[in-house]
Amino acid sequence: MDKSSIREDFPILSRRINDAPMIYLDSAATSQKPQVVIDKITDYYTNTNANVHRGVSSISVQATDEYEQARGKVAEFINAESDRQIVFTRSTTESLNWIANGYAKDRLMPGDEIVISVAEHHSNIIPWQQVAASSGAKLKYVQVNDNGQIDLHDTKRQITDKTKIVSMAMASNVMGATNPVKEVTKMAHAVGAKMIVDAAQAAPHMPVDVTDIDCDFLAFSGHKMLAPTGIGVLYGKMDVLEDMDPVQFGGEMIDIVSRQSATFQPVPHKFEAGTPNIAGAIALGTAIDYLNSIGMDNIHEYEEQLTQSCMQEMQKIDGITIYGSENFKHHNGIITFNIKGIHPHDVATGLDLQGIEVRAGHHCAQPLMDYLEVESTVRVSFYFYNNQDDVKRFIEALINVKEFFANGNRQDESII
Amino acid sequence: MDKSSIREDFPILSRRINDAPMIYLDSAATSQKPQVVIDKITDYYTNTNANVHRGVSSISVQATDEYEQARGKVAEFINAESDRQIVFTRSTTESLNWIANGYAKDRLMPGDEIVISVAEHHSNIIPWQQVAASSGAKLKYVQVNDNGQIDLHDTKRQITDKTKIVSMAMASNVMGATNPVKEVTKMAHAVGAKMIVDAAQAAPHMPVDVTDIDCDFLAFSGHKMLAPTGIGVLYGKMDVLEDMDPVQFGGEMIDIVSRQSATFQPVPHKFEAGTPNIAGAIALGTAIDYLNSIGMDNIHEYEEQLTQSCMQEMQKIDGITIYGSENFKHHNGIITFNIKGIHPHDVATGLDLQGIEVRAGHHCAQPLMDYLEVESTVRVSFYFYNNQDDVKRFIEALINVKEFFANGNRQDESII
Repeated sequence: MDKSSIREDFPILSRRINDAPMIYLDSAATSQKPQVVIDKITDYYTNTNANVHRGVSSISVQATDEYEQARGKVAEFINAESDRQIVFTRSTTESLNWIANGYAKDRLMPGDEIVISVAEHHSNIIPWQQVAASSGAKLKYVQVNDNGQIDLHDTKRQITDKTKIVSMAMASNVMGATNPVKEVTKMAHAVGAKMIVDAAQAAPHMPVDVTDIDCDFLAFSGHKMLAPTGIGVLYGKMDVLEDMDPVQFGGEMIDIVSRQSATFQPVPHKFEAGTPNIAGAIALGTAIDYLNSIGMDNIHEYEEQLTQSCMQEMQKIDGITIYGSENFKHHNGIITFNIKGIHPHDVATGLDLQGIEVRAGHHCAQPLMDYLEVESTVRVSFYFYNNQDDVKRFIEALINVKEFFANGNRQDESII
Repeated sequence: MDKSSIREDFPILSRRINDAPMIYLDSAATSQKPQVVIDKITDYYTNTNANVHRGVSSISVQATDEYEQARGKVAEFINAESDRQIVFTRSTTESLNWIANGYAKDRLMPGDEIVISVAEHHSNIIPWQQVAASSGAKLKYVQVNDNGQIDLHDTKRQITDKTKIVSMAMASNVMGATNPVKEVTKMAHAVGAKMIVDAAQAAPHMPVDVTDIDCDFLAFSGHKMLAPTGIGVLYGKMDVLEDMDPVQFGGEMIDIVSRQSATFQPVPHKFEAGTPNIAGAIALGTAIDYLNSIGMDNIHEYEEQLTQSCMQEMQKIDGITIYGSENFKHHNGIITFNIKGIHPHDVATGLDLQGIEVRAGHHCAQPLMDYLEVESTVRVSFYFYNNQDDVKRFIEALINVKEFFANGNRQDESII
């Protein structure tokens, strides 16, 4: 991995924030985009833009070819058996909502159970609360262990003959812990339940193999893995996708429409009503090409090195609590922490004044915050375009913030 | 309107198709994008990209400001009272589905009636078929008159005390006819029904004023009006949006999440779950700036001139049937036709061989095709970047196609 040239591929990384060079440490919220992805969007709108699947005209056929090739790249990226198992959505959130509404809602009934974990993102909690409320099914939570991973013993306890749906993140967006989703899939299948994997924080950072995991559904977002905003992926096993109902209705997804009824296209097109985010899907294909050129294993290993250095330095600073494991290998590029006596928003603001962009808040995971007995935290998240200099500058800035607040909240003095 | 410089703003218009300069006459399917919109996307990903509404970091605040400013531009563009009445969706299709699912479905019951027209796009038909099927309400159709517009007498007959929802296109995507949605809104309100306007084909081509129309909901897409794919708009009156349930659940749209329940943000954010198409919304704002710089009245008038010339020349050719009105003023830049004895797909292919990109098919309006007693048609659709030269080349090419097929389907000879 040639780190120097990689950084040059991301034009935004040379911008400044508050008169300091920007250090972007918020890739778990959204990633930055390499020039090739930006160029692909420009190229599409400059040369190929047309509506897809609709015409015999050359430009429409070209746009359709590029869009469907992108579907193929996604299928290969997660080792799906067929391109047809890839449905384009807006985001992980939409993918999970479609599974909840189009697959789970009408199949569950009172007495049935849905099992998730306390460490899920809101997008993998609230759709299940809704399904539970409308179907009468029960929503159950698996605890996490000291490493921040879901507790397999508790998972075994929670999954019973009543379980119909198990849905869990492959990697936590708060503590970064990678979960043993393959083992959980086996437990789910042993009782006849369907297994859903939220791979929003996993797909950008490690190899994801749906055939190996054997999950029934898997969801992830383009924008966290170098692609534009507004494009996401819903993978499903062919038989469950065929069984699943479309959630949106309109053009493209139909076969024959009469006044009172309609028949639908085969999978995956029955799910993609209306004009999709064509440019977004095509640019996701380019993002995948770029990630593949580096290698997902290399990305994962490199991010572990950054996490290791950063955690080592943070552990030397008094008063810092890092949530989740003490082992950098359980963090997947994410370090969530608090500094004793300083509000997380003040830490984030203090870092921002020094050009360092991090996140403070509940990270769309309030049940986990309750579990950790905190209101909010600061989160630093790395991607492969970060480097050891970024770690060094973050640590220096963090020490500045701590010293500033340790001496009383001296609002009359500059933090830098 | 300076037509020469406008054309230069659209880089794709200088491309070639099948060794001929491309004439793009398919803007009703999707519009091309001016350089300023393409540049805005590049600018966003090069300078401002971050997740919105989530952080105290400067870059996140900047991205949020740009995203919310775009909401304001949309509100102003359709004369909404408040920015908060603008919900960002993927497309018109998604906007209409959200209204059907989040507002209509749980409010309708057996005995209630939904009124639409036979000229609707599938996206304004199938969601209502679904609502009718799940609620027991009845789906009724208004006929169109000889001008291709909805028949106001029939509308008056169809709207009764049982009517709860009326949903109609402001402009037809097939025949181009503009419908008197303001009058229909009055009829709907007189019986206490809600009025939904599908403005997908109107918003790009004429002024749209939601306050004047007084509709309860209005939907349109960015991609048909110079903006990127994957961004759409759902407008609603404040009280109905507040009453309407969110359709997707996850991050951003929540207030407090406990394990078994959640409370939601105020309008519009309660509808926007997960990371939205941030760049798409911002570039839609740029597209609106560009449209405003030309003026929607100017655009409408100029497209009428193109339609007039084109229809006049087409009417001179034997064997051509133009659907809808004989008056160019009822076409909104769209001419849908057939040539006697030649399949629409053959016409489109023959035109494509000469570089002219049109659409052939059912145009996502099968009930209208049944009504017109045709299987499919050819559709030519203009936007303000087309010019009289495009009309001339289209007419020449159309005559070539007709002569080629009139002499028998001579597959051994070139059409050009």
